[in-house]
Amino acid sequence: MKTTLIKDILALPADGRDVEISGWARTKRESKNLVFLAVNDGSCMASIQLTFDRANDEAPQANALIEERLKRILTGAAVRAKGKLVPSPASGQASEIALTEIVVLGEAPQEYPLQKKNHSLEFLRDVAHLRARTNTFGAVARVRNQMAFAVHSFFQREGFQYFHAPIITASDCEGAGEMFQVTTLDLEKINGKADYSADFFGKRAYLTVSGQLAGETYATALSRIYTFGPTFRAENSNTTRHLAEFWMIEPEMAFYDLEDNMVLAESFVKYLMNWALEKCGEDMAFFDQRIKPGLIQTLTHVAAADFVRITYTDAVKELEKNAGAFEFKPFWGCDLQSEHEKYLTETVFKKPVIVVDYPKDIKAFYMKLNDDEKTVRAMDVLVPALGEIIGGSQREEDYDKLLSRMKTLNLNPDDYWWYLELRKYGTVPHSGFGLGFERLLQYITGMANIRDVIPYPRAPKQAEF
Amino acid sequence: MKTTLIKDILALPADGRDVEISGWARTKRESKNLVFLAVNDGSCMASIQLTFDRANDEAPQANALIEERLKRILTGAAVRAKGKLVPSPASGQASEIALTEIVVLGEAPQEYPLQKKNHSLEFLRDVAHLRARTNTFGAVARVRNQMAFAVHSFFQREGFQYFHAPIITASDCEGAGEMFQVTTLDLEKINGKADYSADFFGKRAYLTVSGQLAGETYATALSRIYTFGPTFRAENSNTTRHLAEFWMIEPEMAFYDLEDNMVLAESFVKYLMNWALEKCGEDMAFFDQRIKPGLIQTLTHVAAADFVRITYTDAVKELEKNAGAFEFKPFWGCDLQSEHEKYLTETVFKKPVIVVDYPKDIKAFYMKLNDDEKTVRAMDVLVPALGEIIGGSQREEDYDKLLSRMKTLNLNPDDYWWYLELRKYGTVPHSGFGLGFERLLQYITGMANIRDVIPYPRAPKQAEF
Repeated sequence: MKTTLIKDILALPADGRDVEISGWARTKRESKNLVFLAVNDGSCMASIQLTFDRANDEAPQANALIEERLKRILTGAAVRAKGKLVPSPASGQASEIALTEIVVLGEAPQEYPLQKKNHSLEFLRDVAHLRARTNTFGAVARVRNQMAFAVHSFFQREGFQYFHAPIITASDCEGAGEMFQVTTLDLEKINGKADYSADFFGKRAYLTVSGQLAGETYATALSRIYTFGPTFRAENSNTTRHLAEFWMIEPEMAFYDLEDNMVLAESFVKYLMNWALEKCGEDMAFFDQRIKPGLIQTLTHVAAADFVRITYTDAVKELEKNAGAFEFKPFWGCDLQSEHEKYLTETVFKKPVIVVDYPKDIKAFYMKLNDDEKTVRAMDVLVPALGEIIGGSQREEDYDKLLSRMKTLNLNPDDYWWYLELRKYGTVPHSGFGLGFERLLQYITGMANIRDVIPYPRAPKQAEF
Repeated sequence: MKTTLIKDILALPADGRDVEISGWARTKRESKNLVFLAVNDGSCMASIQLTFDRANDEAPQANALIEERLKRILTGAAVRAKGKLVPSPASGQASEIALTEIVVLGEAPQEYPLQKKNHSLEFLRDVAHLRARTNTFGAVARVRNQMAFAVHSFFQREGFQYFHAPIITASDCEGAGEMFQVTTLDLEKINGKADYSADFFGKRAYLTVSGQLAGETYATALSRIYTFGPTFRAENSNTTRHLAEFWMIEPEMAFYDLEDNMVLAESFVKYLMNWALEKCGEDMAFFDQRIKPGLIQTLTHVAAADFVRITYTDAVKELEKNAGAFEFKPFWGCDLQSEHEKYLTETVFKKPVIVVDYPKDIKAFYMKLNDDEKTVRAMDVLVPALGEIIGGSQREEDYDKLLSRMKTLNLNPDDYWWYLELRKYGTVPHSGFGLGFERLLQYITGMANIRDVIPYPRAPKQAEF
């Protein structure tokens, strides 16, 4: 195969060398004796321009063939083309290909859904199998790829081991009401009583809502681990911020206290911002111009800022100074709303903020209790224009305190026997946090609807493709 | 946090510098006035030795404290220790830490399940939450991490975009009998008729068995993509080679024919072998010595070999020459058995073999039909000591041929409308293959049971932890 990706062609000098590309026709136009065909292969945002000069009579037979084939090429057709890479007189492109040969691999009919006019994002969700062929969704897909690799690169550099948490779980943790059940029972044959002994796993099984608890078992063996896998919530939320299936990143570190956790989270967020800005220049410029003006400035600011650290108690005091401005009145004990979080990062501090030591009653059972017995060693990382991007905590490493907290919350310790054992056998201070990958992508691309940053979104009544 | 990972400590010169480590005690022994404590933090196979000299009376108070704390340290206890990194007189280790301070973070009782004696792999499956603390499973976890990063590094280098295929799917493809159903219906309330309109997705939904079809939609937009995610089979197979939940890698490339596919697959396999040999030296030496002697030689051989290419028809001829040696008699049209595959790689060619052009009747509907109309452009990559490690094909890009094949196999084209549309709108020659991540890990580590190369295996009646 001699075909080269267009992103690599565009990096070559336009010195007349022979090149071969393959891709899909975006637009075709004619001007006197010249025909211009823009071809895109998805390797980058830019299309490459193929030019054909009808007046050139050096190779009349070859030219007649090109002429005939160009006629068959409409938007969406797949082509393979050869030619010479030459400087382009057109603005906005350094090089173009002077055609010497073109092959139509697959035609596209007039009714091809992606004609050159702009389509609404809603329409494109209905043709999700084709939408990656557009500028917007091609850019989203490439940035998604880059950010996934950034995640791995960061944690590998920091000495973490990638850990695959189980997807199917029989431990009925964290509120089964929002979990999907997994079964091989024939639902049509159930008559009022499901016989789980005949089910695949011999008991009720669910899709995981978080890899954290399993992650802790490996962190207390390998010191530093991270998960990066799909998680599921059967929440009936039809919003622009919720998915039933989404990817989560959950690092978990033995011997890390909350301070270490904050240092890691800040460093991670900055690394991700810098990666997007450095590795996705062309796509980020598109998002900044077409999707969310000011985006690059926001990310640049986050990458350079020293994150503010503040206790929940002090944060609430800040909010109470301006209580009238909020829909939800802030008070000690309240869950911080998005409006509160934005106020802290955008108005009070004008930079990212890490809020720590939340009331225990609004946080999960596994968070380490502070000496005041009212707050826990939780942390939320808030960023301008979004609010919470990361939630984490130091974990409770004391067996008795953890057990007592579970009993208070009516959790059955038997379901967590293995989790509790980590506190019996060489327990250690440890910490971790979670980052929703699609929330991150929304932040980086500026896309308003979370369904537009994952290839095939899953939501209530929606599992197409 | 000043604690350094032990793998980083062991790379430092033993020049008396002050260091701090954290980890879990493996063994403690005494010799006259010396106490030796081996501590492991999972960052590498090696433990570091802490030495305490009772005869040293420079700091009597500190020494009394160390003495008292060492008494509390049994196997499995978590400690933080400070000391000077000095050359070790013991064999097999260049450096050790002369203790100046030790803190017991968490004790471990006498009944800690992982005492120093060797445990059976079966026993360790019952304490899967602790088994990563052993040499074997620590090594598996680290190699798993390295190989996952190798996968990403390879495809990023080759210009591929990482693609997240959906996990929950409503398209009832490839034999629903082996799929897990996903539901939020209350099974106890079903009475002979499941009302899917009330289910979360408004219809039957399943866990994916392969990301390939979705992957093709992105390959025909971005040119080269790969998936790396969990896939599921509800097969009732209790073997050492099957899991109900496993991770698959599925690259898919537009403009690649079968030849290009073979070049990529060979290059990928060699890259993975080399990565394991180069980046996992200490762990690979362990597997070679303790798990599967000859392992390193096998992998080295695969990494250096030119893969043989042979048609299925010729491969069957080779097998027929020695038909008596097999349990399953080879004949044209048969599915190649593991014994056949091993014979080709180990006896006939003594190197990896790529078999192409299989009978269409034993391969999937989406594989490109050859002109003989009897075989398809399938390829299986076989390696010595295993058999098939990769299966792939050039895909059928012709709309009519694909449709006709689906009808022959009683597949409903309406279920595949979006997949068929890829052949209507700018269809292109394209190819791809699949590699089961756990099968790869078995090959690289020599672990006999696939349940030992994934943290929490899922199999019939087994979804613990």
